[in-house]
Amino acid sequence: MSGSTFGHLFRVTNFGESHGPAIGCVIDGCPPGMALSEADIQPDLDRRKPGTSRHVTQRQEADQVQILSGVYEGLTTGTPIALLIPNTDQRSKDYANLLDTFRPGHADYTYWRKYGLRDPRGGGRASARLTAPMVAAGAVAKKWLREHHQMRFDAWMAQLGDIEIPFHDFSWIHQNPFFAPNDEIVPKLEAAMDALRKSGDSVGAKIICMAHNPPPGLGEPLFDKLDADIAHAMMGINAVKGVEIGDGFKVVTQRGSEHGDALTPLGFETNHAGGTLGGISSGQDLIVTLAIKPTSSIRLPRPSINRDNEPTSVSTQGRHDPCVGIRAAPIAEAMLALVVMDHALRQRAQNADVHIQVPPIAGSLS
Amino acid sequence: MSGSTFGHLFRVTNFGESHGPAIGCVIDGCPPGMALSEADIQPDLDRRKPGTSRHVTQRQEADQVQILSGVYEGLTTGTPIALLIPNTDQRSKDYANLLDTFRPGHADYTYWRKYGLRDPRGGGRASARLTAPMVAAGAVAKKWLREHHQMRFDAWMAQLGDIEIPFHDFSWIHQNPFFAPNDEIVPKLEAAMDALRKSGDSVGAKIICMAHNPPPGLGEPLFDKLDADIAHAMMGINAVKGVEIGDGFKVVTQRGSEHGDALTPLGFETNHAGGTLGGISSGQDLIVTLAIKPTSSIRLPRPSINRDNEPTSVSTQGRHDPCVGIRAAPIAEAMLALVVMDHALRQRAQNADVHIQVPPIAGSLS
Amino acid sequence: MSGSTFGHLFRVTNFGESHGPAIGCVIDGCPPGMALSEADIQPDLDRRKPGTSRHVTQRQEADQVQILSGVYEGLTTGTPIALLIPNTDQRSKDYANLLDTFRPGHADYTYWRKYGLRDPRGGGRASARLTAPMVAAGAVAKKWLREHHQMRFDAWMAQLGDIEIPFHDFSWIHQNPFFAPNDEIVPKLEAAMDALRKSGDSVGAKIICMAHNPPPGLGEPLFDKLDADIAHAMMGINAVKGVEIGDGFKVVTQRGSEHGDALTPLGFETNHAGGTLGGISSGQDLIVTLAIKPTSSIRLPRPSINRDNEPTSVSTQGRHDPCVGIRAAPIAEAMLALVVMDHALRQRAQNADVHIQVPPIAGSLS
Amino acid sequence: MSGSTFGHLFRVTNFGESHGPAIGCVIDGCPPGMALSEADIQPDLDRRKPGTSRHVTQRQEADQVQILSGVYEGLTTGTPIALLIPNTDQRSKDYANLLDTFRPGHADYTYWRKYGLRDPRGGGRASARLTAPMVAAGAVAKKWLREHHQMRFDAWMAQLGDIEIPFHDFSWIHQNPFFAPNDEIVPKLEAAMDALRKSGDSVGAKIICMAHNPPPGLGEPLFDKLDADIAHAMMGINAVKGVEIGDGFKVVTQRGSEHGDALTPLGFETNHAGGTLGGISSGQDLIVTLAIKPTSSIRLPRPSINRDNEPTSVSTQGRHDPCVGIRAAPIAEAMLALVVMDHALRQRAQNADVHIQVPPIAGSLS
Repeated sequence: MSGSTFGHLFRVTNFGESHGPAIGCVIDGCPPGMALSEADIQPDLDRRKPGTSRHVTQRQEADQVQILSGVYEGLTTGTPIALLIPNTDQRSKDYANLLDTFRPGHADYTYWRKYGLRDPRGGGRASARLTAPMVAAGAVAKKWLREHHQMRFDAWMAQLGDIEIPFHDFSWIHQNPFFAPNDEIVPKLEAAMDALRKSGDSVGAKIICMAHNPPPGLGEPLFDKLDADIAHAMMGINAVKGVEIGDGFKVVTQRGSEHGDALTPLGFETNHAGGTLGGISSGQDLIVTLAIKPTSSIRLPRPSINRDNEPTSVSTQGRHDPCVGIRAAPIAEAMLALVVMDHALRQRAQNADVHIQVPPIAGSLS
Repeated sequence: MSGSTFGHLFRVTNFGESHGPAIGCVIDGCPPGMALSEADIQPDLDRRKPGTSRHVTQRQEADQVQILSGVYEGLTTGTPIALLIPNTDQRSKDYANLLDTFRPGHADYTYWRKYGLRDPRGGGRASARLTAPMVAAGAVAKKWLREHHQMRFDAWMAQLGDIEIPFHDFSWIHQNPFFAPNDEIVPKLEAAMDALRKSGDSVGAKIICMAHNPPPGLGEPLFDKLDADIAHAMMGINAVKGVEIGDGFKVVTQRGSEHGDALTPLGFETNHAGGTLGGISSGQDLIVTLAIKPTSSIRLPRPSINRDNEPTSVSTQGRHDPCVGIRAAPIAEAMLALVVMDHALRQRAQNADVHIQVPPIAGSLS
Repeated sequence: MSGSTFGHLFRVTNFGESHGPAIGCVIDGCPPGMALSEADIQPDLDRRKPGTSRHVTQRQEADQVQILSGVYEGLTTGTPIALLIPNTDQRSKDYANLLDTFRPGHADYTYWRKYGLRDPRGGGRASARLTAPMVAAGAVAKKWLREHHQMRFDAWMAQLGDIEIPFHDFSWIHQNPFFAPNDEIVPKLEAAMDALRKSGDSVGAKIICMAHNPPPGLGEPLFDKLDADIAHAMMGINAVKGVEIGDGFKVVTQRGSEHGDALTPLGFETNHAGGTLGGISSGQDLIVTLAIKPTSSIRLPRPSINRDNEPTSVSTQGRHDPCVGIRAAPIAEAMLALVVMDHALRQRAQNADVHIQVPPIAGSLS
Repeated sequence: MSGSTFGHLFRVTNFGESHGPAIGCVIDGCPPGMALSEADIQPDLDRRKPGTSRHVTQRQEADQVQILSGVYEGLTTGTPIALLIPNTDQRSKDYANLLDTFRPGHADYTYWRKYGLRDPRGGGRASARLTAPMVAAGAVAKKWLREHHQMRFDAWMAQLGDIEIPFHDFSWIHQNPFFAPNDEIVPKLEAAMDALRKSGDSVGAKIICMAHNPPPGLGEPLFDKLDADIAHAMMGINAVKGVEIGDGFKVVTQRGSEHGDALTPLGFETNHAGGTLGGISSGQDLIVTLAIKPTSSIRLPRPSINRDNEPTSVSTQGRHDPCVGIRAAPIAEAMLALVVMDHALRQRAQNADVHIQVPPIAGSLS
């Protein structure tokens, strides 16, 4: 029940610190007999890894994953899959000045209050680097969901600071360093990031994540509803401060006659719900929106205190993402895949004998 | 791990259906030696119960709670506290027409797809009536948190449909049927609700919930972060489609130099974070905002299908809240209290030996 | 994770005290669509209930179960099944003298040390009366396992104090008050119990429990092995001090060439293993043996202390079983059924896609 | 909830196979601020490791542990402690003949039935080699329990096949390859093992394990009783078929007046209970006895079948312990320490406010 394990039946236990020898995870409960090798996992890690453009942290990590267990002759055996990602480009001296003080907005302060001590190097355990093992685990989940339910996952940047990014096409997402589903806006994003970097400040972002073609019936009311578990997963990603399912905060001003997605013999007419009703997947696409706060580690000096409660000022050097939202898209995808995977197993545990014949439901982006 | 249990160490298992003989819950893990009687629980149930104004459902339920176990001579014994709330005002015939069709926006459809059958009377298990046992359990948690950490909880309506409700004063919340922290706006809300009721439609709302004076150090990264668990609890409440911690979606356009709450020897200067940093409570007030969708059960006819996938139309009679957000305030409070309580026990399990002397941190509503 | 919940996917939460208004449980995760009524549960409760012969406690309890939720029109809905058993024959004054002292061998002392206070009436939470809800839950599990896997469960007394009870026939078990699989020995058991009752003392017993026809593949190594979970369930029954799977302690002197059950095209030749290999069911019958200690509540005076640590003497009046082992058979059956049921759901969650064609394996009592 | 995680608050997730690149575990929930290095862990691993005498398997493994995370500047940080133990002496070709058949008494058959495929090299996941990470985790738990509760753990061989080993002295345990608390009997044990090895057969053993000086109050009724969780842990160790707490199966013939340990102002007079009453620690020493079956991998040919259900014969070559019981003592110690550690944290979560002043209770080996 300790907090570094995610999921119940497809269960991922995460370990490591930003500047330790390695990070990684153990996936327990993966169904056996699925072909799996490092090549299935590496592409997603490569999408998340640092140093791939001038707009993200310049830390150079290959993020090369090794499978230590759970695969025999190329197939999963049903036993724990341990994944190891060595750290290779630590520069811990950049953090010497952080041992005694606390970045405003950062977990520095609360880790100290909780544990009485902390590893300050690179943010230690609080670093977003620890999302890498989740991206790796998510790749395993995605593969199974693709093979068993023809599911796909997409996540993209919908807003960078003040710049809204109109959705054009899924195919654009993977063709620019911002995961923007819109190619025309990229020069504007680049200019904004270049100015931001020069200013020594950081900025927030909005990410949308979709799971295409989920099976209906996933989610375990009253408390482990699918949307509740998605909210848990997403709010747990570093820097996330808001989560919406479907229309999200737009529902506040909606009428019931407008919000409720009409059912027709050919499927739902709209998808205001974002794919869940009563916490259970309807078969429509899952749509989740995330608010990601600006990075706390900035060059601009900020007022703070030290461990003796004396006033001081903090200016973060080191290497940091001026917008952590940029690399958040593959992380959101992975976390969504992990939630869906866990629920797919939970669903067949209880309800494998339920067989309802209905025509296919069309998923639609409302 | 089945989905009707909430929490890990202060653990609540919920049972019942809207029109069954009774609803209730079992609280396991409550610390022993706390004075507890029905009188500690009933006031919160009374705040949530139906039929208290013309703006909510007219179902008449006393929601009278009975303690069946776990209390001996007025003190908790540390063993399970079973709470029972009889149902007394069911009108199941109102739901006869729902057995074969599905309200757009409602869990009718997904329960059927998941379980193959469902209890349609009053929404069965999907009814918001099942939040009553959580309000009862939350009252137990609040009492312990008040006695051990001087905590208080407040929740209020911040917006009803298009009507924003400016925050005036906590004291107003309990003096009007809308949980509005603002007395002047009440006539406007009443007029809007009267018109809405007449129209046969429903509307959404925005709720803010606060926990005053939480101890620092609560939350279990990486995955059981305090804010992640709050998001899980809140998104699991009926009709919730969005959750924000602190500034929420406003962070998208913020700069790091603006968002990060400066630390001073006298405490934090602001509370953009909403009380958590890195998923761990900072000691500042916890601030959570919820988007609540319009009720799915409306009198206006909507297009739907039946179980044979033939087109039909649904118009819900029965008794329903035209804005479920109105009664959501005490529910949000209870769920927040349950999350905090669970983490208070988790925190002392691992970190009871951590002792850091710091001056008190001032909580502030940003 | 608190201790009053049993199981993971078929999950039972127990509540109540011996002399409170009611005891009961909530079953979460039961598959939907199974016919269920009180009549499916009551027979097992009747087998366990007190007052059915002069050899057990004379407390008169009807142990009449009520289903409060989770069943609609005679079928399980997949939502929590709450079961309530009112207490009707409390005589709490018999326990007045126990509030301040501790029966040797009883939980009186440790409950006090753990919780700082306790409900002494009838043993409070430590009473074997709390096994009644488990017997009720076990009846639900048995029904599903019978319908889905043609499983049956049997438990019987194999030894009462010094008297070994040779196994004759399953049919005898239900025809005498001792659950003895042997009719001839009953007069000897009755004489022994009559003498014991007169002496004011109590005695231990040995119980054997069998699950016939389990599906192969149940059990989740490394730690939630089927036999490990059976041991957990059985050692948790009141008064159990030893658990054996298959040959149990006889393996200490066995050779590998003797112990390992040979496989043949027609099935295993023997069943020394008791139905599990490497913690996973082999398809052979599960065989479990329990050692049950003599009741701690005896009329004979025993040395003890009071809460001020002063020496005193305890003689238990009240109504007690002079051999708790007598009523243990239906309890052991129920707990075994609950373990198997939980693992049946866990197994299909992970391994529903594994399909191996083998001839049926004959189960045999070694 | 998947089966490779042990414990709830002090939680160990195990990974690896006998012949994979490495085995290891992740410990989550360890309290922060405890000095920890590999030197604290290695001695227990050295006691368990293979190849240390001619009476155990001749596989040569250094079992050198590496701490990958969770320790900063020599102190635990409260975040996950990942432990890695490389495999260095695999001889997988010895297992080529096992891919298609099943050793009687071994998990070969059931792993195949459960997962549909298995890693046969060295027993794969079913190998007792996977106890090494638990011994490492147990060393961490022992250190904390020693520092916080002055606890110690001992385990020893009480019987090897037919040879009973009278208890002489704790100090002898560590001075012979059999963990025998008795030096005089060692030549007899050596002779027996030499003969056994020559015969190509294997033999069972009985192990006793003790935890000295546990705090009272540990254990979470009804189901996570301390003794129930000990039984779970012990029955889950490879080859264990029976578990006793305190007097174990001797209670069957005991009278209540004999079994119940009398309380006196100076402590309990005896320890028939083995340290738990009602599933809660009394403060007396915990005493657990294990029955360990003879190794299934023997040179003597045994009848079996192949995957096509055709009759065949199996003779295991490879390197195996002729008595797995010999190396079981440090494993039993570790598992007992892990159970106690988890419950120590659980106990202070719920009951940190309970303060009862009593004189120290003397632990005694009944």
